[in-house]
Amino acid sequence: MSATPPANLALNALLSDKVQIVNETIERLLAEQTQAQADLKKTLAYTLSAPGKRIRAVLLLWCCELIAGRDNAEALTAAAAIEMVHAYSLVHDDLPAMDDDDLRRGRPTCHVAFDEATAILTGDALLTLAFEILACSIADATRAVKLIAELARAAGPAGMLAGQVADLKAENTVGTVEALEYIHTNKTAKMFRAATVIGGLCGGANAEQSDALARYGLKIGLGFQIADDILDVCASSEQLGKTAGKDEQAAKCTYPAVVGIEKSKELERALAHDAIDALHIFDQKADNLRQLARALLEREK
Amino acid sequence: MSATPPANLALNALLSDKVQIVNETIERLLAEQTQAQADLKKTLAYTLSAPGKRIRAVLLLWCCELIAGRDNAEALTAAAAIEMVHAYSLVHDDLPAMDDDDLRRGRPTCHVAFDEATAILTGDALLTLAFEILACSIADATRAVKLIAELARAAGPAGMLAGQVADLKAENTVGTVEALEYIHTNKTAKMFRAATVIGGLCGGANAEQSDALARYGLKIGLGFQIADDILDVCASSEQLGKTAGKDEQAAKCTYPAVVGIEKSKELERALAHDAIDALHIFDQKADNLRQLARALLEREK
Repeated sequence: MSATPPANLALNALLSDKVQIVNETIERLLAEQTQAQADLKKTLAYTLSAPGKRIRAVLLLWCCELIAGRDNAEALTAAAAIEMVHAYSLVHDDLPAMDDDDLRRGRPTCHVAFDEATAILTGDALLTLAFEILACSIADATRAVKLIAELARAAGPAGMLAGQVADLKAENTVGTVEALEYIHTNKTAKMFRAATVIGGLCGGANAEQSDALARYGLKIGLGFQIADDILDVCASSEQLGKTAGKDEQAAKCTYPAVVGIEKSKELERALAHDAIDALHIFDQKADNLRQLARALLEREK
Repeated sequence: MSATPPANLALNALLSDKVQIVNETIERLLAEQTQAQADLKKTLAYTLSAPGKRIRAVLLLWCCELIAGRDNAEALTAAAAIEMVHAYSLVHDDLPAMDDDDLRRGRPTCHVAFDEATAILTGDALLTLAFEILACSIADATRAVKLIAELARAAGPAGMLAGQVADLKAENTVGTVEALEYIHTNKTAKMFRAATVIGGLCGGANAEQSDALARYGLKIGLGFQIADDILDVCASSEQLGKTAGKDEQAAKCTYPAVVGIEKSKELERALAHDAIDALHIFDQKADNLRQLARALLEREK
């Protein structure tokens, strides 16, 4: 069984550049948790070793590279931290009380592989660990605090969690474009923006560069979420590595449900172009970021 | 209905010194979350306004005061953060998949007052917010990073979460004193130690002072957990503000269950004395910490 869903071929080829070093960093940081409770170590490893795209981590590393010419130890730590926060959000999102999903990244979800209590605590551990490694592994305290603030704001009650609550609340309601924008901006785009901004910070970005990366991250995040919603309608579970058609089944508020597939694809294209526009201050060193925006559009073909 | 369980009179009288300023700080920090999603703001306020003892926060402030002569803005922020982490642990611990509790601090638990998904996300928000306020509200970056590292380690997979997993695992097994020590040290005592150490750090403690506060925090935390387990057996739900007799019903691994009530009280007395011993480098300025150790022993009378 391939861990790479065919629909994501172009995207995955592009990201593969950095996926290995992200995975190695995560493994190393987990191995350093020698005092962690034994069962939790197993469930953390199970969750973090699932074949994810690591798109947030790769974006972070690319943004650091764009600014500083190369990635660095701080960016690698931050990339691992952002993947931990993303993994926690998936573990909790998949719980029976939330989206009740059995399959994630081609594997049984955490509460299916273990049990519900373990999944709750594993999510909690991933979130806590993300902040611990940022506080313990970034040498420059001023930078560490900035990264923690950025990540916490993006993941917190004015960020990803705001989107989750709004998303659950919008189920079985007549969705509006306004509600969708709120959900997508908070649930997905702010974490993408955190990835690009944190990458820039690790590279030493100035205010202008940081603003450009923030705009790019927000647009690419919105585009990514629309692409995900379109895929949920159009692709099979095997292609997705998670249960397809879940959004419609759960009467989720998505762009395809509210404005239809064609209009959704149009919006996605506009967001990809906006993302590329945001990069106009950068030369060809930002081409991987531009390609990522284009690859997004290829996902649902 | 009194919010103060009678069994805790001596303890609450002692803590009341600082409870108001802790509550005001929490309210202020919540009010500053103007961008937080509206429903989450309500559930955060519901959870954080429940009449808790604020023992971790008060300990933190006292330890800062002991070192620096007074508490300060950093200690108040950290006190609010540690109460947020404690509140998150209760919200998740009360979930149906965990301890399945309906009553907490004399009020319906979060998943009863709202719903399970909301309780999971509210817990997540409390944890994230704790790190956000430490990263955003502590002026000195070096200190902020130390506090975040200390709190994350105490709350994470080698701390409180380790204790939670071990606690769930020990249900319906023949408990051993060794297993109990692991559970109590991790589930409870490490967060007490974080409170005393963080308080000391906010006051500018040197290594010797910090070590003494760490030892005191660990011992008082262990004593507090044993006292809690004894109360669960001996007090009524009305006295506790949470469901009494839950431990036995859930076949929890507790000191009363493993070594009996008398031996448990003996251990508690020894821990209170150890805690007081740890303070020998401090003069009468540490008397409130000493009184707290003694008040613990009064709880189950």
